[in-house]
Amino acid sequence: MTYPSLDTPSAIVDLDLLAANIHRLQAYLDTHGIANRPHIKTHKIPAIAQMQMDAGAVGITCQKIGEAEVMADAGLTDIFIPYNIIGGTKLTRLTALARRVTLSVTADSAVVVRGLAEAAYRAGLEIPVLVECDLGGKRCGVQSPAQAAELARIIARSPGLTFGGLMTYPNTDALDAFVRETRALLEPEHLPVPRVSGGGTRGMFEAHTHAELTEHRAGMYVFGDRHLMLAGATPLETVAFRVLTTVVSRPTSERGILDAGSKTLSSDLMGLEGYGYICEYPEAVIYGLSEEHAHVDFSACARKPEIGERVTVLPNHVCPVTNLLDEVVGVRGGKVEGVWQVAARGKVK
Amino acid sequence: MTYPSLDTPSAIVDLDLLAANIHRLQAYLDTHGIANRPHIKTHKIPAIAQMQMDAGAVGITCQKIGEAEVMADAGLTDIFIPYNIIGGTKLTRLTALARRVTLSVTADSAVVVRGLAEAAYRAGLEIPVLVECDLGGKRCGVQSPAQAAELARIIARSPGLTFGGLMTYPNTDALDAFVRETRALLEPEHLPVPRVSGGGTRGMFEAHTHAELTEHRAGMYVFGDRHLMLAGATPLETVAFRVLTTVVSRPTSERGILDAGSKTLSSDLMGLEGYGYICEYPEAVIYGLSEEHAHVDFSACARKPEIGERVTVLPNHVCPVTNLLDEVVGVRGGKVEGVWQVAARGKVK
Repeated sequence: MTYPSLDTPSAIVDLDLLAANIHRLQAYLDTHGIANRPHIKTHKIPAIAQMQMDAGAVGITCQKIGEAEVMADAGLTDIFIPYNIIGGTKLTRLTALARRVTLSVTADSAVVVRGLAEAAYRAGLEIPVLVECDLGGKRCGVQSPAQAAELARIIARSPGLTFGGLMTYPNTDALDAFVRETRALLEPEHLPVPRVSGGGTRGMFEAHTHAELTEHRAGMYVFGDRHLMLAGATPLETVAFRVLTTVVSRPTSERGILDAGSKTLSSDLMGLEGYGYICEYPEAVIYGLSEEHAHVDFSACARKPEIGERVTVLPNHVCPVTNLLDEVVGVRGGKVEGVWQVAARGKVK
Repeated sequence: MTYPSLDTPSAIVDLDLLAANIHRLQAYLDTHGIANRPHIKTHKIPAIAQMQMDAGAVGITCQKIGEAEVMADAGLTDIFIPYNIIGGTKLTRLTALARRVTLSVTADSAVVVRGLAEAAYRAGLEIPVLVECDLGGKRCGVQSPAQAAELARIIARSPGLTFGGLMTYPNTDALDAFVRETRALLEPEHLPVPRVSGGGTRGMFEAHTHAELTEHRAGMYVFGDRHLMLAGATPLETVAFRVLTTVVSRPTSERGILDAGSKTLSSDLMGLEGYGYICEYPEAVIYGLSEEHAHVDFSACARKPEIGERVTVLPNHVCPVTNLLDEVVGVRGGKVEGVWQVAARGKVK
């Protein structure tokens, strides 16, 4: 499909595949009694968040307050922000948000809990705070059940806060033991663990193997991308997102240049070789990107493209692509249906 | 400087250093009689483009029509778009732009020239087209002086177009010989080469060693970044651009997490190890980025940061950072002076 009415580069989303992806994960999580709380970081579009809610999600996940504000403005009512929120400006925005939606957050240190507690107490709120646990992801998170239990106690005795449970990303084999050990440490104090929130698209269909998981946060499953396709998580026929580009130069018999560079495809490698998968030329290799050019080696392709020809690309990682673009085009059956503004794009605060 | 009035992450530009960077390159190019045509892709801010014009630039360079439209709207009057422009939508916008500013473009194929010619002729315009030459950059560009001369002839005989000269990026040792050979091929036909436009910040102070260069396009020199600092092109004391971030987690004694990830710093590596330089902790290594987190190894630092501490980061590559953010904060002497909207951000078309 070359969508002659669209200029390039354009991000296009197949609406039938999008709906199927949303329903497939929801049905799986429903089957296993796990709450679905999709991460909007992949699409950043309130209408798609609403599609996820309509399919049965219990709420959404946002990574930054600015994203949550956009979603709240659009009518989303239950938002989880699994991020350490620090500083007066953000805490003021957080309490304002907590007044209008069902909000929960995370913390992995007493410093973060203290700030949350002061702001929530002053605002007359009770905000649930989950303890972020590092189960091998080696990003944020407490390092042991003892630390998790200690932080849970601090949260529980902080006016303005309630202990909301445990959060991790991604789900690992350590999850169940970590949760059980933490729960055992808290039981004598009659402090229950109401939520155990895990996440990730790569492991989404193994969520049920973690018996302690009560909720799952996946983001990329709505669209899919090259790295998830190669990992087997989103087979090519389910990938709903492509970047439509034009071949703008054929400087040599082997080399081609597309009009989508790192400003469109992002330079995320995700551990792969190359910067994307050209659907019409699967043997081609996008071996380099500059800001406005993809540098492609077509030597392995029997037929090679002409200047002006349009091709579609699966980016390595879809989330940063929607963060680069102001709009995404919805298509169905090869026809353009409409344009979505990426309303929560660039909300880094 | 921690700028308590600013939330994090924020991009901050030291206005004194910015002005010094603009004037240093202008003075150098003036000394050597080379026209300065800075590339706005680094800042994407009309006010900074105007500072470059006020310092003595002959015009600006934009990579996409959308950037040029923003700059034209802001009053910039001489714009070069060194890109192969293809397709009816873009050509219509291009001719509209050519009616209100002094515009020049490039081409590296007869296909691109044909589209430009048809659009310009129909609009009753004469648009100068430079031939893009590949002198080792291996992106777009004709491959030999013979090809350059042949395309120059096609341009020259196309109603609606004039042959504007030769363009390349980056400047290489092949430049002078390539230009002289092309000129020799065109001289019998009385076809002069009016402009020879080169570019790049890394080689900017060697522009005068290319005797045939008449104009230079540098972008990143206004701000500088980590990759240019390590290459010796923008010493640390001249780097005008930093990202102000907060340490949001210290999960282990060695690990720290900043609230600026690939959505702020971009994942551009530029051939380096690590994702940025932390000014207050030069020994620290940003060994990984996720979208909203920088993952830092502080093990080599004698003192390690507290949670909530603010640090400033030089990104590896500054251009994609301004493309991710909606605004940039101007500071002087440690005080905030104002906020610029990144008006030409995200203009991929």
